[in-house]
Amino acid sequence: MSLIVHKYGGTSMGSTERITNVAKRVAKWARAGHQMVVVPSAMSGETNRLLALAKELAPSTQSEAYFRELDMLAATGEQASSALLAIALQAQGVESVSYAGWQVPIRTNSAYTKARIESIDDERVRADLEAGRVVIVTGFQGLDELGNITTLGRGGSDTSAVAVAAAMKADECLIFTDVDGVYTTDPRVVPDARRLHTVSFEEMLEMASMGSKVLQIRSVEFAGKYKVKLRVLSSFTPWDIDINIEAKSGTLITFEEDENMEQAIVSGIAFTRDETKVAVLGVPDKPGIAYQILGAVADANIEVDMIIQNISKGGLTDFSFTVNHADYAKTIDLLKNVVVPKLGAQEVVGDTKICKVSIVGIGMRSHVGVASTMFRVLSEEGINIQMISTSEIKTSVVIDEKYMELAVKALHKAFGLDQVQA
Amino acid sequence: MSLIVHKYGGTSMGSTERITNVAKRVAKWARAGHQMVVVPSAMSGETNRLLALAKELAPSTQSEAYFRELDMLAATGEQASSALLAIALQAQGVESVSYAGWQVPIRTNSAYTKARIESIDDERVRADLEAGRVVIVTGFQGLDELGNITTLGRGGSDTSAVAVAAAMKADECLIFTDVDGVYTTDPRVVPDARRLHTVSFEEMLEMASMGSKVLQIRSVEFAGKYKVKLRVLSSFTPWDIDINIEAKSGTLITFEEDENMEQAIVSGIAFTRDETKVAVLGVPDKPGIAYQILGAVADANIEVDMIIQNISKGGLTDFSFTVNHADYAKTIDLLKNVVVPKLGAQEVVGDTKICKVSIVGIGMRSHVGVASTMFRVLSEEGINIQMISTSEIKTSVVIDEKYMELAVKALHKAFGLDQVQA
Repeated sequence: MSLIVHKYGGTSMGSTERITNVAKRVAKWARAGHQMVVVPSAMSGETNRLLALAKELAPSTQSEAYFRELDMLAATGEQASSALLAIALQAQGVESVSYAGWQVPIRTNSAYTKARIESIDDERVRADLEAGRVVIVTGFQGLDELGNITTLGRGGSDTSAVAVAAAMKADECLIFTDVDGVYTTDPRVVPDARRLHTVSFEEMLEMASMGSKVLQIRSVEFAGKYKVKLRVLSSFTPWDIDINIEAKSGTLITFEEDENMEQAIVSGIAFTRDETKVAVLGVPDKPGIAYQILGAVADANIEVDMIIQNISKGGLTDFSFTVNHADYAKTIDLLKNVVVPKLGAQEVVGDTKICKVSIVGIGMRSHVGVASTMFRVLSEEGINIQMISTSEIKTSVVIDEKYMELAVKALHKAFGLDQVQA
Repeated sequence: MSLIVHKYGGTSMGSTERITNVAKRVAKWARAGHQMVVVPSAMSGETNRLLALAKELAPSTQSEAYFRELDMLAATGEQASSALLAIALQAQGVESVSYAGWQVPIRTNSAYTKARIESIDDERVRADLEAGRVVIVTGFQGLDELGNITTLGRGGSDTSAVAVAAAMKADECLIFTDVDGVYTTDPRVVPDARRLHTVSFEEMLEMASMGSKVLQIRSVEFAGKYKVKLRVLSSFTPWDIDINIEAKSGTLITFEEDENMEQAIVSGIAFTRDETKVAVLGVPDKPGIAYQILGAVADANIEVDMIIQNISKGGLTDFSFTVNHADYAKTIDLLKNVVVPKLGAQEVVGDTKICKVSIVGIGMRSHVGVASTMFRVLSEEGINIQMISTSEIKTSVVIDEKYMELAVKALHKAFGLDQVQA
């Protein structure tokens, strides 16, 4: 007998018909002899509906007291969907009980709207499992030490599911979603993209942070930290698919490098159009420039991704970095009005028509020349590289956004990702 | 400085615009120096929407586990509206915090969907009041000793408000609703009906149980038991009405008989078409008949209202009682198939075209002849009385439903209820 955690996203919970399908699928797993904990998201659209009401009432409020109430409000979406799923399971003849985060309790810090899980008490849930009940635990939410409801931020139900799986030492955590796994790259861009049978959590981290929106990044961190076996699979297969086939479907995100690990050096190509590039040109090259520029940017709550400082020429250097589209105008203003006068730089330039393309693969650790293959491929396609950054298992480049599709396709082919898996 | 509890019904909370109006009204009371606790219902339609989803998922489930989940589900409506009201108050510049029933906590028994409040811990709420915050407490719900969410049944938010007012020894509990008070009778039937400035909680109990649907009956019982001053008033007056005028508007339900009590002997005329009449004719008149008939009816979970046993003639008697429309067919069946064969009665008859009309007044305690005035008036109108029942402050008659309006109008006039109050 295994202890299995299922997580279902908002789309999978989007109507009573779909909730009944989820119930039938969970019932199948329970009847196969597994102890089942299920973490559902709110019905699709519900969280947005609630937050829109709050926005109407208080278009500009931003206080902590306000964020506390937003969490009280938003948490109702998962409480309702959890109760509905418990009811749907009962209608299938399966004993079931639902718990809100505070009832488990799932303890978090008090960072309303973006709280972090600190601990989970599994006693209550375990007692129900022992009594043969399927336990539904609300995703997305917890309880702080003051007794207030907190939420974990968008996509937080993934994190709840993984955290519950970690706390209960579940055998596996299955994330049912509207895609059937993690792909070598976005199939909408590269029709030859293949589903990965397994991917390491480190690769998944790099993918998740770079536009593969399959899983909330924090849930992957959590899975890695607590060594939770995580599987991403589709909730749109028929519920009565053979359980042994289903149990091996989708993509397994594993922390064990040697366990059925795919041998490819590069596992996937990630890309995003979310970034923009800004550069401060002709800065007198003195110690502390990076701090003076990036410190001011960080103080303005702007997150910086890639950072490049050119080699100094004639005592002057250029300093470039990327920020999210949403922060672009604010960053340019800040540089022009605050940073440039202070540093005596010559000019501030920016470019919003860029994209970032990354190759990700745990095999890059032990293989040389992977980055240079990437650069060669791009060069052969006549694509100019504007910025480069590397990590142990990833190489990212910034290029003109008009070449994005071309670059992704060429890299996907060059690294053999279109080949059927061994 | 007074401690005031406001309760707002679902219609008053029905849109963000209305919630903002509630916030402005509450802010006015807070700025006048009162400590404010507010108990809102769910936004109108929300509870029905949620329960309809449950019904779709499990059309016939009735287990305790199911009712527990219904409470988890339904309680989200008030949690959301409470958070929204707190946000609306913050937008008005008023410090505010919302608590779900379990956070206060409001402790109840475990009778899911119809729980009873057992105790309220006011420490947390009082600390916020002392800190100058308006406290929003969800209506309709509490926490049982197992840590499960319970709800109090339809209209339960009235009871929550009164219970909170009792626990906190509030100076007054104001129930804002879509009518502007308690009337001598239904103004839709008698255009001359007058709003009562005050009514005793005992009269209100009789009114509430007989078709005056202004307040949930349990909230009135609670108010009586804990001597909570209760005022029913309209939430549809402009929010910026002078607070001194507002504080004296509507109808005060008081437990103090001498305090500004209206001197009328009869305070109001209540009526209902909800009842039906059934009769067992020609029952051999032996001890224990009433028990044998009504015991069987009670065992079938059918609630009986008025009961009449005729004087015995030739060793046979007739036994009549009234039940709700919904139980009529079930009752007739039960009598025909179970009770009659056992008792050897001659016949079972029923009548669904009846109504019950009642005069209610605390003055009836000390005035003789009130009932006989009622009978005279009905007789003068040619209305036949089918059944009569009396209590200390009420006399009810069952008559043909086609005479209901005529009877109510005649009684309203005969007891001077159309006269302007002294």
